[in-house]
Amino acid sequence: MLPIRGYATKGPTSILEPFKFERREPGPHDVLIEILYCGICHSDIHQALDEWGGAIFPMVPGHEIVGRVMRVGAQVKRFKVGDLAGVGCFVDSCRVCASCKAGLEQYCEGHIAWTYNGTEKDEKTPTYGGYSSQIVVDEHYTLKISPNLPLANVAPLLCAGITTYSPLRHFKVGPGQRVGVVGLGGLGHMAVKLASSMGAQVTVLSTSKTKEQDARRLGAHDFVLSKDSTSLEAHANRFDFILDAVSAPHDINAYLRLLRRDGVLALVGAPPKPLEVHAFSLVPKRRTLAGSNIGGIRETQEMLDYCAAKNITSDVEVIPIQQVEAAYDRTLKGDVRYRFVIDMKTL
Amino acid sequence: MLPIRGYATKGPTSILEPFKFERREPGPHDVLIEILYCGICHSDIHQALDEWGGAIFPMVPGHEIVGRVMRVGAQVKRFKVGDLAGVGCFVDSCRVCASCKAGLEQYCEGHIAWTYNGTEKDEKTPTYGGYSSQIVVDEHYTLKISPNLPLANVAPLLCAGITTYSPLRHFKVGPGQRVGVVGLGGLGHMAVKLASSMGAQVTVLSTSKTKEQDARRLGAHDFVLSKDSTSLEAHANRFDFILDAVSAPHDINAYLRLLRRDGVLALVGAPPKPLEVHAFSLVPKRRTLAGSNIGGIRETQEMLDYCAAKNITSDVEVIPIQQVEAAYDRTLKGDVRYRFVIDMKTL
Repeated sequence: MLPIRGYATKGPTSILEPFKFERREPGPHDVLIEILYCGICHSDIHQALDEWGGAIFPMVPGHEIVGRVMRVGAQVKRFKVGDLAGVGCFVDSCRVCASCKAGLEQYCEGHIAWTYNGTEKDEKTPTYGGYSSQIVVDEHYTLKISPNLPLANVAPLLCAGITTYSPLRHFKVGPGQRVGVVGLGGLGHMAVKLASSMGAQVTVLSTSKTKEQDARRLGAHDFVLSKDSTSLEAHANRFDFILDAVSAPHDINAYLRLLRRDGVLALVGAPPKPLEVHAFSLVPKRRTLAGSNIGGIRETQEMLDYCAAKNITSDVEVIPIQQVEAAYDRTLKGDVRYRFVIDMKTL
Repeated sequence: MLPIRGYATKGPTSILEPFKFERREPGPHDVLIEILYCGICHSDIHQALDEWGGAIFPMVPGHEIVGRVMRVGAQVKRFKVGDLAGVGCFVDSCRVCASCKAGLEQYCEGHIAWTYNGTEKDEKTPTYGGYSSQIVVDEHYTLKISPNLPLANVAPLLCAGITTYSPLRHFKVGPGQRVGVVGLGGLGHMAVKLASSMGAQVTVLSTSKTKEQDARRLGAHDFVLSKDSTSLEAHANRFDFILDAVSAPHDINAYLRLLRRDGVLALVGAPPKPLEVHAFSLVPKRRTLAGSNIGGIRETQEMLDYCAAKNITSDVEVIPIQQVEAAYDRTLKGDVRYRFVIDMKTL
């Protein structure tokens, strides 16, 4: 076994502290990655606080991982020592169900091995995430990272990037379409960059007027203060697609009514409490409320290659790991533009 | 003006009583139809009680209309005196918006003239529905009815039929798919007949065990007692498509969880209170909650022709108009298999 250093929390009321644990020796299909940067995703906080239930402690969070390959198994074909590599929200899946076979491992109908707060393929060994020195992952669940982009800014693409890219592609967002982005945070700012890069007319809908300048800088063509019901009403029946990245309780009907006929609102946030949906927000225009969860390995690689070609990365604030608790507090307040990324050499 | 006899309600606390009113003389594009049968739709009751707000009184309900053409305007091409004719939920629309041009008049972005509880194209003259002796409708909003089917049983196709046919077609239900129908009432029983005629494997999900025999007679291949959470769980991640025809409050998450990846639950009922939707019911399987509203004229004609070819009609209980109040009471209790239809010669 390999000795690993990381940061873990012992329970929902604990803080993140230095933690020593072990990972398996790389098998024939595994790569051993030295972690260079790891993003802080809002879902790290949800899970560290056990807000979704069933959390496994001690927990080493982190699923926006970039690093460098230190060792490869004998059968590994796609990576060699010294390559950059990325790991996202899962490190294995059943590989045999219809979803896995379709390259949609994130919707695996068998056992999926989440990068942390889950179990390995054996369904027993706990998984530990990216707030750590090294990780061992099957090469088929490891992503190739372009050397042409700043690495710290690439890390959040592994979750925030693919979580917004996948629904934009699945629901066929393209040139000339009107796209709304609700909530300008870690996910929302990636949605603005990606949707505008795809040729859509992007409007940011935010409760905070102070985000307007940033919204436009990130590529939005319009900004609507969503607290102002008159402004919202002026955009009724207008949008082809709305991406809702808000995980706090909010009135989703106000946004559904902005969709044109056959428009789609995709939820990518995960509010712990149910959303109240009026049938009359959906029925009269045949509107759709959908959910979307990260993306599969093939699509994540496609997104990383797309971002490399289009020079798209996340806006980040790099911190030493000793500031992770402060970063959690600031993330909960929305006080980050737009993603904290831990510099793992500070470990 | 033409003198018309009908039944109307004067307000949300009134009952339906005989009522005399006038309709316009048929213009060059109009047909005058002697109404032979009119179905009683649950939305007649919602509107007579002003449960959706903004009701216009006196109200002559009824939008499941079949009858015989008595007179045609000079420019009318598709109908001649003596033809059977049908009228559904709307009698005109703006004709120029994108939805009207696409044959989706039910989603008209301008003014739609609902068959009752609305206004004509002038946006002033109230419309009166099918609980009446005759109706005058532009031929473009009038449907052709096959003489090969029993007329009383055809009437409910004009709303219950198209309301279920349209989402089955739009969401591409076909052979081998697993389709769930929630609620075996006026809409639900049509959904079972139509979906099974399209080759789907149909399961009825009902709170009432007494409906099982009927469900199977109507064409369902399976029946699940939806009050039994163990039975429901056994069907998790199983359905490609679920049609939810329940207008009472219900736990929609229990049904959403029955959908497989990329499955669609289409709401065609209109519960007056919002539905509580958990993000976790949608996000992990990229499921979709959609609404669907009746159908356009082109699709309604397609449905009527399809039903004539497949010998599909509604199961009805024919009543004299003097029993309409008792029929409303029984409809509210779910005590009808599966649609009341008024024999208008009793007027």
